[in-house]
Amino acid sequence: MEQNRVYNFSAGPSMLPEEVLKEVQRDMLNYADSGMSITEMSHRSKPYMAVNEEAQALLRELLNIPDNYYVLFVQGGASTQFACVPFNLLGKNKKADYIISGNFANKAWEEASRYEGLDIHIAGSSKADKYTYIPKNLDIRPDAAYVHLTSNNTIFGTRFNEFPKTNVPIVADMSSEILSREINVNDFAVIYAGAQKNIAPAGVTIVIARKDLVDDTDNVLPYCPTMLKWKTQADNDSLYNTPPCFPIYVAMLVFRHLKKLGGVAAIQKVNEEKAALLYDFIDNSKLFKSTVAKEDRSIMNIPFVTGDLDLDAKFVKEATAEGLCTLKGHKLVGGMRASIYNAMPIEGVKKLVEFMAKFERENG
Amino acid sequence: MEQNRVYNFSAGPSMLPEEVLKEVQRDMLNYADSGMSITEMSHRSKPYMAVNEEAQALLRELLNIPDNYYVLFVQGGASTQFACVPFNLLGKNKKADYIISGNFANKAWEEASRYEGLDIHIAGSSKADKYTYIPKNLDIRPDAAYVHLTSNNTIFGTRFNEFPKTNVPIVADMSSEILSREINVNDFAVIYAGAQKNIAPAGVTIVIARKDLVDDTDNVLPYCPTMLKWKTQADNDSLYNTPPCFPIYVAMLVFRHLKKLGGVAAIQKVNEEKAALLYDFIDNSKLFKSTVAKEDRSIMNIPFVTGDLDLDAKFVKEATAEGLCTLKGHKLVGGMRASIYNAMPIEGVKKLVEFMAKFERENG
Repeated sequence: MEQNRVYNFSAGPSMLPEEVLKEVQRDMLNYADSGMSITEMSHRSKPYMAVNEEAQALLRELLNIPDNYYVLFVQGGASTQFACVPFNLLGKNKKADYIISGNFANKAWEEASRYEGLDIHIAGSSKADKYTYIPKNLDIRPDAAYVHLTSNNTIFGTRFNEFPKTNVPIVADMSSEILSREINVNDFAVIYAGAQKNIAPAGVTIVIARKDLVDDTDNVLPYCPTMLKWKTQADNDSLYNTPPCFPIYVAMLVFRHLKKLGGVAAIQKVNEEKAALLYDFIDNSKLFKSTVAKEDRSIMNIPFVTGDLDLDAKFVKEATAEGLCTLKGHKLVGGMRASIYNAMPIEGVKKLVEFMAKFERENG
Repeated sequence: MEQNRVYNFSAGPSMLPEEVLKEVQRDMLNYADSGMSITEMSHRSKPYMAVNEEAQALLRELLNIPDNYYVLFVQGGASTQFACVPFNLLGKNKKADYIISGNFANKAWEEASRYEGLDIHIAGSSKADKYTYIPKNLDIRPDAAYVHLTSNNTIFGTRFNEFPKTNVPIVADMSSEILSREINVNDFAVIYAGAQKNIAPAGVTIVIARKDLVDDTDNVLPYCPTMLKWKTQADNDSLYNTPPCFPIYVAMLVFRHLKKLGGVAAIQKVNEEKAALLYDFIDNSKLFKSTVAKEDRSIMNIPFVTGDLDLDAKFVKEATAEGLCTLKGHKLVGGMRASIYNAMPIEGVKKLVEFMAKFERENG
């Protein structure tokens, strides 16, 4: 890592591979010998069309996305998809089920619940227990159009280590874990993800959606805006209007980088190693403890607490001074949170664990 | 200009000030001594919050935006605002009027016309005449909630040199001319603009809206998604969810740059000089001619044709070889189009005019 850079445990936007940032820097005034920055280029220009195409092709390759799925690059973040999901899927069948496993899962459910004439049902929730685990014993209605879940809960540090076994189409918000572990895309009807955690700078959202669902426009609610209709971007290869070119360009570079590292299987192995380092230390610590059920632990977002607010604050302050940054926990959990996405080098996690050990010796 | 750079006449995304790009390049791996790229930083971090604040303050200063207007940074481009405008303004009064002066004005009208129960009326149109002028003798209904117009038509190269005198609130899409000339914000109820022409890389859209209209939530249609509701971002200082941080950061740098140049009055003078150079040449040329009514000419987008398709193609090809790039006209107009936004140096226009003179001597 460059000397003046820090290990940044931010939950999002978050670290990007240094190699990618250097390439962005190098080409900032002149991309692909065009005499223009990638940020100055028409989205209909040949160099940008090639970026759009390669980014899509690489994502298909990395996630092994079957041909019967669209891959879309859209704007507005996962929060906009909270509306797009019911708008694009509840045109005929008005029934949808939601699993409330965290703050964003709850927001997705709230958004769907706002619209008249829809039948939105909670299939499971851990809200009453402060989202410390993933809801089990789900009550998914067999005739629902879809069941929505958040596969990894950024704030609370839980994830679905197994996905529900159901015949109901699953719609998954994977914002904080996409490309961190192997998944079977066929298990899902729709996957969506804001890019700003594991993929690229904020501003682009990935939607992977089964073509039969998108192509059947009777599934679209009549008041769905043209720009929120997945079919609009599917028919236009994500170029219906000017796309967020820069984040898509960086996504392409990150996909190239990930492929070079060996793809998702390889990065999953590294991610599991990184998470194990931290969890093993926490499980053996007398000072720090995990805040969530062991079987539902995320390997991306790892909250931990000392149980003493002053000590937590001291930890965050001293860690920052050591170049271990953005470790303060979300206000809904408190304490600390280490977000260790794909771009966090294992050296960063090692340095964090060393620092935690030292802190425990000094304050235990 | 750096030696390997070209004069880029792209209609959008388009040129950015070289000085700004160099600053972006310099700070790409370490913004404001944070040890992180601006693209890796939490949107709740101090350095990013400062960017959000300064960008808004500078835009307020540059456009002299009164306190009774919100300034919002949102996603989705002007195309998403085509839905946001009726969604946020037609909750009570269902009547809205549209002036159809070009392709995007037409799209805005089409979008508003898609929703049941709204009363959308055309107040004037130049569609039948291929948008070669700005519609006059408008039929604006005095009880309409708003009248929508596109102040500058990117494809056709026309603009409103005078805005309609009416008591009906004016909503203006200023995507392709914002910050190019002085305007009186008080003359408008809402101004919106995609950033990718005169402000920043694609991915952020500016909305400037009168607070009384936004705060009266009865104006919002019931099926307006949370993320498309202006009030959502107004109440959260454009930080309701993760914003498109990078384009907003570049926007801030462009605003600083513009302020240093003397603000909008100063850049307007330069823009008028640039446009005059090109129009004077065209008006005196025997080969090239303008495609629009003289009184409605845009100073941002200047289409011109020879009348001979082969000669047009030859012109574009030879100009490109001279580093005068992206001059091909839009398919709806043909011929050539020079987009000379704020960031196009006057030297670029001079070089274009010299080249046109040479081309005319050789092919006239």
